[in-house]
Amino acid sequence: MPHERTRVAIIGAGPSGLLLAWALRQSGIDSIVVENRSRDYVLGRIRAGVLEQGSVETLTRLGLGDRLAREGLVHDGIYLQWGGERQHIDFAELIGRTVTVYGQQEVVKDLMAAHDAAGSTVYYDSADVAVHGVETTSPRVTFTHEGEAHDITADFIVGADGFHGICRSAIPASELALYDRTYPYAWLGILADVAPSTDELIYALHEDGFAMHSMRSPHVSRLYLQVDPAEKIEAWSDERIWEALQVRLGVDGWNLTEGPITEKSITPMRSFVASRMDYKNLFLVGDAGHIVPPTGAKGLNSAITDVTLLAAGLIDHYAGDDTRLAGYGAASLGNQWRGQQFSQWMTELLHRDTTDLQSADFNYRSQRGRLDYVSRSAHAQRALAEQYTGLGF
Amino acid sequence: MPHERTRVAIIGAGPSGLLLAWALRQSGIDSIVVENRSRDYVLGRIRAGVLEQGSVETLTRLGLGDRLAREGLVHDGIYLQWGGERQHIDFAELIGRTVTVYGQQEVVKDLMAAHDAAGSTVYYDSADVAVHGVETTSPRVTFTHEGEAHDITADFIVGADGFHGICRSAIPASELALYDRTYPYAWLGILADVAPSTDELIYALHEDGFAMHSMRSPHVSRLYLQVDPAEKIEAWSDERIWEALQVRLGVDGWNLTEGPITEKSITPMRSFVASRMDYKNLFLVGDAGHIVPPTGAKGLNSAITDVTLLAAGLIDHYAGDDTRLAGYGAASLGNQWRGQQFSQWMTELLHRDTTDLQSADFNYRSQRGRLDYVSRSAHAQRALAEQYTGLGF
Repeated sequence: MPHERTRVAIIGAGPSGLLLAWALRQSGIDSIVVENRSRDYVLGRIRAGVLEQGSVETLTRLGLGDRLAREGLVHDGIYLQWGGERQHIDFAELIGRTVTVYGQQEVVKDLMAAHDAAGSTVYYDSADVAVHGVETTSPRVTFTHEGEAHDITADFIVGADGFHGICRSAIPASELALYDRTYPYAWLGILADVAPSTDELIYALHEDGFAMHSMRSPHVSRLYLQVDPAEKIEAWSDERIWEALQVRLGVDGWNLTEGPITEKSITPMRSFVASRMDYKNLFLVGDAGHIVPPTGAKGLNSAITDVTLLAAGLIDHYAGDDTRLAGYGAASLGNQWRGQQFSQWMTELLHRDTTDLQSADFNYRSQRGRLDYVSRSAHAQRALAEQYTGLGF
Repeated sequence: MPHERTRVAIIGAGPSGLLLAWALRQSGIDSIVVENRSRDYVLGRIRAGVLEQGSVETLTRLGLGDRLAREGLVHDGIYLQWGGERQHIDFAELIGRTVTVYGQQEVVKDLMAAHDAAGSTVYYDSADVAVHGVETTSPRVTFTHEGEAHDITADFIVGADGFHGICRSAIPASELALYDRTYPYAWLGILADVAPSTDELIYALHEDGFAMHSMRSPHVSRLYLQVDPAEKIEAWSDERIWEALQVRLGVDGWNLTEGPITEKSITPMRSFVASRMDYKNLFLVGDAGHIVPPTGAKGLNSAITDVTLLAAGLIDHYAGDDTRLAGYGAASLGNQWRGQQFSQWMTELLHRDTTDLQSADFNYRSQRGRLDYVSRSAHAQRALAEQYTGLGF
């Protein structure tokens, strides 16, 4: 059985795991990444598409910004829509910051290419991945890869293995509280081979429910509809989807161009936060520790923040200073709760909640009152802009 | 039976009704006010205590600002408190605006004195008040006063008669929708004969629930505790009240001084908006059309906004221009929904909601995350400041 030794064993080769491995490598710290899925599976996962300005800066600083600079679509703002009106919130003008539309898969692709070129060790298709002794100074990861049993000893183990990963459960239950909230709606998302009908993202509150027009490239549109979490995707023909999008996104003098739908799926909406992001020599990053509803585009970005904080802590550690590593959990959680409350605010601002019939109509009008207020207030728009573009604190 | 004629018959001698009568009188428009309660009862009602800057300006412009200027306590901001930390939000520094603490009873007292001096007609203790023919150009009010039946014909009738008043129901049900929301908590409020322990209002989110330290004068404190709406006031001894206030308002290095409690009561929290504020020749102002939870101090202030808008419309009407009067309903409702969403935001930010056990802990931490964000963001603080001090749009 190959016995390996590395400084940091990273579980999960999604954007968090690959980025952490890359950030460490740039500072001369070796790591090994272990992933139970195939490389193609990881690369094919369709997820977030909006990078905060700080995320773009981080990727660029780490030498991952070339294709991002060429192909990423810089957006100066977003559109908010309600009551048949659409208003532009101009982040660039309001606070001098922007976001960049660049699919998570593209980030992963760039990371894989960088690791390939550098010869990093990434074990895809690993079976029976398990972590051991995270409370000791020589924690281990065991797994089977291409029929061979592996046993890696490390200084630290990092769980970058997502919400369903194995690492979070290596923290004793008595040391861990889990906070979560489900929402009474889900997102039906589609990819369509058609040029976006908008230059920037449209977030619409409609009496029928939320709708959103996003994009992946100048030729690929990404659109979403609020649906009941119990809906089956089979109930939504392409025709029905476009019909609902036309109704909810429609404003006078604007056309939504339809095109062939290449992917459709329904995703439930959830907020989830683990009470700690570190335990002895185990650290969690990204979805392993927290999930946001997608409305505020905080999922990938807060994972990148985690990685940035943890990489800085580990780099300092190997330079002899443990201050930042010891502060990682608190820093990550502080950032996370600020992002969670924003994600919840954006979500509840824009979705129709008819669970409680008695207050549903009041709430819908109160949401419109909030949108009306935001549309009139430069201060409120700046607060939205700084949270959306991810002004770090 | 005395037949009287006036231009505007106003039902209700609370602050809305008396202020409207006064504003009209200042422009030479006669009105009669009819109130079913006694003068002492109206004067004794303990209600709101915070005047927005715009409300102070309105009262001053109408010649009602002398005692207000002498005795009102100008506050530059408020304190927000959570997790044992208290932070000052400095409205004056943030946006150059302030609020003034001056009890609603004081406003009513000033209005009564002004009307007394001017010889206005205000019928207190009126029984069997009824309105007739609001859809005609000569609507009437009938009532009995000191044993005598009265019948007033007017150009317009104004319902300033509060949530439980009679005027709203003069609008046909088919023309009216009612939007409301109840909250799973109430406020236990006390008046205490003790100097306030704070120079400005303290709004505290505590794991046990919301608490607030307000004041009425340099010698009278007003304090609130979130309680269950089903609580009986008898269950809350003075001792128990102070104990809970000490826990929820406590921060290191600060003392809450106790004193004799002179009044205590429990008020449910509710948001309510009628879909229209006008119907033919009937207009509603204040609580007759809408109720806010008290957290954002918007109740009296939005009533003063209604009166300001309606007085302007009526004054223009008698000068031959009906534009503003025709726009009253929309203007009042627009302002109302912006105030409602802010009141809801402040309320949900600061109260513990344990109705849904599954999400209660998440929500509490998300609220703390929002307070943490607000504490770090000048933009968010300015948005809070402008909404709290009532920047008109």
